[in-house]
Amino acid sequence: MYIVIVGCGGLGSALATKLADEGHNVAIVDRDKNAFKKLGTGFNGLEITGVGIDEDVLRNAGIERADALAAVTRDDNINIMVAQIASKIYNIKRVIARIYDPERKSAYRDFEIETVCPTTMGVNEIRNILIANGVKKRFELDNGISILEIKVKKNVNMTVYDIEDKFDLRVSGIKRESTIIAHDSTIVKKDDILIVTMKEAKAEALARYLGNEG
Amino acid sequence: MYIVIVGCGGLGSALATKLADEGHNVAIVDRDKNAFKKLGTGFNGLEITGVGIDEDVLRNAGIERADALAAVTRDDNINIMVAQIASKIYNIKRVIARIYDPERKSAYRDFEIETVCPTTMGVNEIRNILIANGVKKRFELDNGISILEIKVKKNVNMTVYDIEDKFDLRVSGIKRESTIIAHDSTIVKKDDILIVTMKEAKAEALARYLGNEG
Repeated sequence: MYIVIVGCGGLGSALATKLADEGHNVAIVDRDKNAFKKLGTGFNGLEITGVGIDEDVLRNAGIERADALAAVTRDDNINIMVAQIASKIYNIKRVIARIYDPERKSAYRDFEIETVCPTTMGVNEIRNILIANGVKKRFELDNGISILEIKVKKNVNMTVYDIEDKFDLRVSGIKRESTIIAHDSTIVKKDDILIVTMKEAKAEALARYLGNEG
Repeated sequence: MYIVIVGCGGLGSALATKLADEGHNVAIVDRDKNAFKKLGTGFNGLEITGVGIDEDVLRNAGIERADALAAVTRDDNINIMVAQIASKIYNIKRVIARIYDPERKSAYRDFEIETVCPTTMGVNEIRNILIANGVKKRFELDNGISILEIKVKKNVNMTVYDIEDKFDLRVSGIKRESTIIAHDSTIVKKDDILIVTMKEAKAEALARYLGNEG
């Protein structure tokens, strides 16, 4: 794929490096040419110095033939403007804007631009680790259902099917020395960490059943 | 819980607000008292102005009775030092350090401090949205196994069990109008999004089988 990235800060440079390493054609734009130093010597993509809301700059970066664009500068307003140019003028189907200020997310929803807010992701992850009570939230689906990690702290002598049958949930993986895919007949052992899809409200009861203290 | 947060930037202030809203006792430390303006008027926690590596400052923030501490300043070195003070001197069991520079993560692993890198989380999320080929990676376990979302683009007339039997994987949830927990007998329908735990290398084959174009 041909991917344009606008903004070569910590996130933009890491994204550009990863995508180039995976074999994609990457063009990265930043108004400060020193920013490209973060890319490392192995980066084989296009580096364009200029402001991302300048269409000449975007055309130099190849926006007319781009399959995807990520606007990840430190300025939320620039990100959303670049994303709109890419989406509305150049009809790029895969466009994403980074958000710094989580409170603006709902405003951006009105522009129909997909957004990612690393700050919110970090807050949720840290919160889950700090508050963990044997239950670690991995991610939230909807309808109250989440994917959780729950540790087995005692011998329960049950298969995956037994646990699924007793609680309304699905065990999909188990972290042991190395992670395995769960099957109905897999026997659950002490010190396993179960990857469970279930109603979050019922997770504490399961955690206690598996020997976690409340 | 009594939680000390060191660093009141975008992430620290959002974390403090969230935890206080959930009913936890929060003390937040920043060397710049203007940083506390980000907390909003509803914040009822303790605000301590000072440098996080100063033990007097940490004691003013109540570190001696803290259940958990998050070190989330903009300086990776300060974060790891604060985390070590909390862990080694004050024996706090739940300690987490934020990392800015993903390349340092492995160095920090040696300190046995749990770390979170929002930049890396953002990079992975953006990459997955840009590159999506019917497969959206939700998170990576290990051993090549990940939790993925894969869309069903045609009628396959199969149950969850049939798909699990044909490919080596576990379906744990299905996104429809509203998300459901998968069971062996659940019938898979066109336009479902399957939440699948499987070897990532085999995901494209499954996506194609389910009608996604390569």
